[in-house]
Amino acid sequence: MPYVMVQIPKTPAPSPPAPRSVPTSADVARLAGVSRATVSYVLNNTSAVRISEPTRRRVHEAAKELGYVPHAAARSLRAGHSRMVLMPAPSIPVGPLYSRFINELQWALSRLDYTVVQYGTVGLHGDEAARAWAELRPVAVLVPGSGLGPQGVAVLKRSGARAVVTLGPKSVEGAHALLMNHEKVGHCAGAHLYARGRRRIGVVVPEESGLEFFSLPRLEGVRRALRGTDATVTELPLAYEEEAAARLAARWRALGLDAVFAYNDEYAMLLMRALQDQGVAVPEDTAVIGADDLMLGRLLRPRLSTVHIELPSGRDLAELVDRTVHNPAAAPETHKVLGATVVHRDSS
Amino acid sequence: MPYVMVQIPKTPAPSPPAPRSVPTSADVARLAGVSRATVSYVLNNTSAVRISEPTRRRVHEAAKELGYVPHAAARSLRAGHSRMVLMPAPSIPVGPLYSRFINELQWALSRLDYTVVQYGTVGLHGDEAARAWAELRPVAVLVPGSGLGPQGVAVLKRSGARAVVTLGPKSVEGAHALLMNHEKVGHCAGAHLYARGRRRIGVVVPEESGLEFFSLPRLEGVRRALRGTDATVTELPLAYEEEAAARLAARWRALGLDAVFAYNDEYAMLLMRALQDQGVAVPEDTAVIGADDLMLGRLLRPRLSTVHIELPSGRDLAELVDRTVHNPAAAPETHKVLGATVVHRDSS
Repeated sequence: MPYVMVQIPKTPAPSPPAPRSVPTSADVARLAGVSRATVSYVLNNTSAVRISEPTRRRVHEAAKELGYVPHAAARSLRAGHSRMVLMPAPSIPVGPLYSRFINELQWALSRLDYTVVQYGTVGLHGDEAARAWAELRPVAVLVPGSGLGPQGVAVLKRSGARAVVTLGPKSVEGAHALLMNHEKVGHCAGAHLYARGRRRIGVVVPEESGLEFFSLPRLEGVRRALRGTDATVTELPLAYEEEAAARLAARWRALGLDAVFAYNDEYAMLLMRALQDQGVAVPEDTAVIGADDLMLGRLLRPRLSTVHIELPSGRDLAELVDRTVHNPAAAPETHKVLGATVVHRDSS
Repeated sequence: MPYVMVQIPKTPAPSPPAPRSVPTSADVARLAGVSRATVSYVLNNTSAVRISEPTRRRVHEAAKELGYVPHAAARSLRAGHSRMVLMPAPSIPVGPLYSRFINELQWALSRLDYTVVQYGTVGLHGDEAARAWAELRPVAVLVPGSGLGPQGVAVLKRSGARAVVTLGPKSVEGAHALLMNHEKVGHCAGAHLYARGRRRIGVVVPEESGLEFFSLPRLEGVRRALRGTDATVTELPLAYEEEAAARLAARWRALGLDAVFAYNDEYAMLLMRALQDQGVAVPEDTAVIGADDLMLGRLLRPRLSTVHIELPSGRDLAELVDRTVHNPAAAPETHKVLGATVVHRDSS
C-alpha cells in the first residue's frame, strides 16, 4: 500500500506522559472563578442545586474556552449510571439483515437517549470479554451469540450494568433472553421442500468460519423436519467462491439430490448459477430455497424461494433495555423472537 | 411484536442509586490483606514495582472472588492512555465492502493490542459528536466521512486522543487524512463507457438518504471524465426497489441512453434485471457497469462489468494509528488511499 511512507521504528518510542494541556474541571473552576463543585453541578445539569444564570453562563463559557470535556466515567459516577448500551461487535463481516437490525436498534435507543457502543471483541472470549466490557461501565449490555455465561452476567451486573440481554439459542442465568433459534429457519425450509414432493435434500453448510452459529442449527432444523419420513438429508460444505460452487455442481448428478436448502440467499444465488451452468434445471431437476428474503432473490430467474427471517424489532429491544434500566431488579424475561416463514417463489 | 409482554409504566420508576454491591479496589485490598496500591500494581501488571508471586496470587484470587473489574478510565489514567480506538458507527446499514474493511481493521488493531469501539452517532453532528467521543477518552479516533472539523479535532486532542485520522474527501487541520475521493470511481466508469463507444450515458443516483456522500462525487466523476467530449450525462434518481426500477426501465427508450453507470453492483443488478424484463438488450442496446466488484456481478448474465474499489488496508491503517500513538507530535500525514480500476466483463 502506497500510503505508509514513514518507516516504523524498530523500537517504538516510549509513550510520553499524558499531554499536559488536557484541561480539568479545576482549570474551568479557576477561569470561571467558582468552585469545582459548581462546575460539576452546572456541566452535569444537576437540578438539585440552585445556581444563578450568570454563574451557569460563566462556567459554560470557561469550559468552552478551555475546550473542557467532562469524562464519561466521572459523569456516570455522579449520575448513578451511564447512558451507554454496549454490544460486542461481530468478529465476522455482517450480512445485510444484521446490518439493518443494528441500525434500527441504534436509532431506537438514541431516541431514548442511549448511545450504542459496539465493542471489538476479536480475540476475547467468554468471561474475559465480559470483564473487558465491564471496564467501560455500560448501563446495559446486549450480547448476540452464545459466548456469555452466568459468571459473565454476574461480572457485568457487579460493575453496574442494569440490563443484560442475550440474543441467542439459550437463556443465561441472570440475563433477559431473546431466544433466536435458527433451527426454525431450517425446519421451515425442510418442511417446505418435503411438501413440494422432494425426498433427497441437500443442505449447504458454509465453510467460512464464524457462520457455524447459524448454519449448524439450520442443518439440525432440516433434519428435525424430516425425521421419521422417507426423506434423506445430505450435508454440503461450500465455500463462498465460484470455483467451489462449480465443483459441487459438477458432481451434482452423482449426489442424486432433488432439492437443496442453500443456507441463505447469497449461497443460493451462487449455487443456483453453478447448477444452471451445469445444465441442472431449477426447479425441475433440483428445487432451491435460500433464506433472508433479500432483494436479490426476487431478481433471479427463476425467482428464488426463501425463508423470511424476522429479527427482533430494534424498537422493542430498546424498550426492554429502558424498562430494565429503570427497574433492574425485575425478574429476567425470556421471549422467543425469531420469526421464520417460507416465501414460495419459482425455484422450489 | 409478541415479546414485549410487560406494560411500560407511564411514569418511569425513579433510578435507584448505583448498586451498593459494586466491589472496589479497596474491597479487594481488604480481602487480600494488602494495600490498595498493591492491588493496583498487580492488576495493572506494573513492572516498575516488584511484588512477590504469593501476593500477586492473593490479589488475583480476591479480585476474582469479589468479581472486581478495574475501571477502564481509572486504568487509562494510570497507564497514561487507553487502548481504545474509537470510530463513529455508520448511521446507515453498511455494505459488504465497508463491513469487510471494518472487520480487517478490528483484527489488525487487536494484534497491536488496541480495541476498536464503534460509537453510535445517530443524532449527533460535527463538534458535538467529537465532544461525545472525547468523553470516552480514546487514544485514537478514526472518522470516516466529512463530519469532523478542525475544532472537533482540537477537542479530541485536548481530551487525550493522540491520533486522529479522517477518511474522507478532504483533509482536516490537525488530523491525518486518508483521502478517499469517490470521484475517481465515477471517472473510471465514465471513461470506460466512453471508450466503449457510448455517448448518452445515464448515472444512477440512489434515493436512499445517507448515500449522497458516495453518489454525488461518483456522478461528478463521470461528468469530469466526459467534459469536453460529445457525450451527455443524465442523472437517474432510483430507489432500491423493484417497482422503481421497473418504472425507470419502462421509460428507457424515451430517455435514449446507450449506457448506464449504476452507482454500485447491487443497483446494477436491480436495473439490469428491469431492463432485461423490458426487452432492452444488455450490452447491445445499453451497456451497464456497477461498482464494488461483488461476487454477485460475476454470477449475473451477462457478467457485470464493475469498478473495483480498493479501500485502505486495515493493517496499514492500524500501523498508522500505532505509530501516531507513540509519536503524537509528528506532522499530520496525507495519503490518497482509494484505488479504482475497471473490471471489464460482458455487460459493457
